[in-house]
Amino acid sequence: MADYETIRVEIADQIATITLNRPDSLNAFTVEMSRELIAAFDQTDADDAVRAVIVTGEGRGFCAGADLAAGADTFNYAELGDTGPVRADGSIDWAHDQVRDTGGLVTLRIFNSLKPVIAAINGPAAGIGMTMTLPMDIRLAVPGAKMGFVFTRRGIVPEAASSWFLPRLVGISRAMEWCATGRIFPSEEARDAGLIRSLHAPEELLPAARAIAREIADNTAPVSVALTRQMLWRGLGLAHPMEAHKVDSRVVFARGRGADAAEGVTSFLEKRTPAYPERVGSDMPEVYPWWDEPAWS
Amino acid sequence: MADYETIRVEIADQIATITLNRPDSLNAFTVEMSRELIAAFDQTDADDAVRAVIVTGEGRGFCAGADLAAGADTFNYAELGDTGPVRADGSIDWAHDQVRDTGGLVTLRIFNSLKPVIAAINGPAAGIGMTMTLPMDIRLAVPGAKMGFVFTRRGIVPEAASSWFLPRLVGISRAMEWCATGRIFPSEEARDAGLIRSLHAPEELLPAARAIAREIADNTAPVSVALTRQMLWRGLGLAHPMEAHKVDSRVVFARGRGADAAEGVTSFLEKRTPAYPERVGSDMPEVYPWWDEPAWS
Amino acid sequence: MADYETIRVEIADQIATITLNRPDSLNAFTVEMSRELIAAFDQTDADDAVRAVIVTGEGRGFCAGADLAAGADTFNYAELGDTGPVRADGSIDWAHDQVRDTGGLVTLRIFNSLKPVIAAINGPAAGIGMTMTLPMDIRLAVPGAKMGFVFTRRGIVPEAASSWFLPRLVGISRAMEWCATGRIFPSEEARDAGLIRSLHAPEELLPAARAIAREIADNTAPVSVALTRQMLWRGLGLAHPMEAHKVDSRVVFARGRGADAAEGVTSFLEKRTPAYPERVGSDMPEVYPWWDEPAWS
Repeated sequence: MADYETIRVEIADQIATITLNRPDSLNAFTVEMSRELIAAFDQTDADDAVRAVIVTGEGRGFCAGADLAAGADTFNYAELGDTGPVRADGSIDWAHDQVRDTGGLVTLRIFNSLKPVIAAINGPAAGIGMTMTLPMDIRLAVPGAKMGFVFTRRGIVPEAASSWFLPRLVGISRAMEWCATGRIFPSEEARDAGLIRSLHAPEELLPAARAIAREIADNTAPVSVALTRQMLWRGLGLAHPMEAHKVDSRVVFARGRGADAAEGVTSFLEKRTPAYPERVGSDMPEVYPWWDEPAWS
Repeated sequence: MADYETIRVEIADQIATITLNRPDSLNAFTVEMSRELIAAFDQTDADDAVRAVIVTGEGRGFCAGADLAAGADTFNYAELGDTGPVRADGSIDWAHDQVRDTGGLVTLRIFNSLKPVIAAINGPAAGIGMTMTLPMDIRLAVPGAKMGFVFTRRGIVPEAASSWFLPRLVGISRAMEWCATGRIFPSEEARDAGLIRSLHAPEELLPAARAIAREIADNTAPVSVALTRQMLWRGLGLAHPMEAHKVDSRVVFARGRGADAAEGVTSFLEKRTPAYPERVGSDMPEVYPWWDEPAWS
Repeated sequence: MADYETIRVEIADQIATITLNRPDSLNAFTVEMSRELIAAFDQTDADDAVRAVIVTGEGRGFCAGADLAAGADTFNYAELGDTGPVRADGSIDWAHDQVRDTGGLVTLRIFNSLKPVIAAINGPAAGIGMTMTLPMDIRLAVPGAKMGFVFTRRGIVPEAASSWFLPRLVGISRAMEWCATGRIFPSEEARDAGLIRSLHAPEELLPAARAIAREIADNTAPVSVALTRQMLWRGLGLAHPMEAHKVDSRVVFARGRGADAAEGVTSFLEKRTPAYPERVGSDMPEVYPWWDEPAWS
């Protein structure tokens, strides 16, 4: 297992639990945490023993947002001279890799996860503490957790590609109200808006997340779930259903000839628990991936 | 009327009712049914006497999903040699027409329907039994009907272009939960998710569907409804409202000069029932269609 | 202040209130009103003293739709000879500027507003009276207000780019039901569909709208809000979250180095009211605008 400093990754019963682990600062987000989260999703994708991922926070918070230890310079990402995006003459190299938002690197990585991801929001979540959960598939929370897309109250703007995710999750009106006011709101409002699936008392939160993960792990074909996750999330960006038809026709054709489909139908007809032989690490169909990864610059 | 074997098509009072008609197998879906459904929507589009279409099932089910009579080979669509997509050397011709998912051929046809389509889900609906309803405009159901996007429990993936439709209808989180677990859920959950408009006792289901169809037929201009259906569904895939403005400006201009617009305003001012003279079969404006049909390969 | 005839624009306490002002006809929409609304949003965008915009109606209605004074010719926008889109031979110049829907000119202008826009729907709203509110960020209404997307009952089609806005706001099923039936429905149904945020007694309607505007004006950085509005609305049309990442990375980088971000973090750490120094009129980052305005023809 990788050696993480700002998170923990535990794998048990086919479920990986990633715990944000800076409890003294309500798990405030740092550049190091962004790198470790990306590494953790590389790990869970590569491990066939993992069927689903839960993300939660250590202590009484989920993630309070960006670590503000740098004070007024918190969001000043420039460096001097030729090592950073600010050139010696003061102009900016906008294509520089260091211009890339660290929150967005995390959410793009989660967007591509081959395993379903469930957020278990155990306490306050603000800024990147909220936006990091948007590419996760399902969000659970405790009652009364304080939440906020507070960017306009810090003089910056929503990040982590949340302008793509949030209006699709809660509609543009709710997204605008939360982001334009920057207000703090309780998890009950997030549930009513459809952002949070359900609320659970603190001691029931992780069990509820695990129950959903369990249902996936016990009943479904891993390769089917990995492909389905790519298809549904990417379907949100397709211009026309014909584009989805091109993809799913080929994936259904490829999957339908395989051992998992035979086992899926046979076990159903025999009313027994399925035992799917195919694995994400070795048995993804040749039509995957069907997209070219979009470039940064 | 065409001679159908797996469905029935009845036209009365300007409403076409398409009934899935293999009640001995809960109307399980077959290739023949896919061809007949496509033919039925060709028929309803071509018939100016039809103002709206209702789709329902014969007997106690709506559609149990793909017919599993072929057992382990149910989803194996390959054929040998040069007649199918699998070449003699075992490689696959991914552009072959036979790779195309039959469910997708049906849903793309319904997507293009010129008449509004109402699903009256009278009992269990699973797999293609659910996904075929996604391009329909409105879904009604009976209480307690069992529903499921069960693909990952059969070793395949969501089809019928549902990766485009489902996240837009219920949001990506609900879509992922249903598809990643593959669970069976009651129609009440589908209603709470916004997938089902309303629930009706069995004897009230078709009357409720007919009441909506009646409201359309009695009050609106057929050419206006046909164009509106293309505009709204295609609007979901447009990148920018300017693209919608380009289309609706031209359609409003074309329609506004015509006899229907004159009758629409005059009848409203005279507080009388309108009698629109224009017909879908003969009076679609020259700006229709405004799109190029996307190609398969 | 500009000299308007069909609307009023009042600015007080950093809030602009635009009042549709043809109460004798329930504020029916005219070409003149479209021009004045566009001018009003030019005014509010250019005025740094305006932090938010409220749109409401004078008298007992919000906007009854297109003015029908021209009777059967209401929607006939053609003019004779070489001054209009209809050529002498009867053919139509579809790229002609006069083909452009006036409602769409208004909604595209509001789409681009740099200030958040709140609709305070004080009474009946139909046709363009509804569709003009769709690019506004938040809609409030009085109980029992009659609403309708009545286009198919007038022989025309939904306009004002509503085929882009409406299915994204309420889902394609509700959008199709409202537009295909053309029915009148109460504001309660619109609230249940998520189109209306909340209902307020007539005397509480403007205070409720002002309270939201106040919350924005008192707590957030104006440049941050202006950029956030462009990012979220445009995010709805982006194909992939990487496209959002490209934008927000650059905007966060630009904003994070500035005086507002320093004040945002410092005031938060000092638990005091922020005083953001940057202004929309002078301090938008060089990466704005990040898009090319799409062309009409």
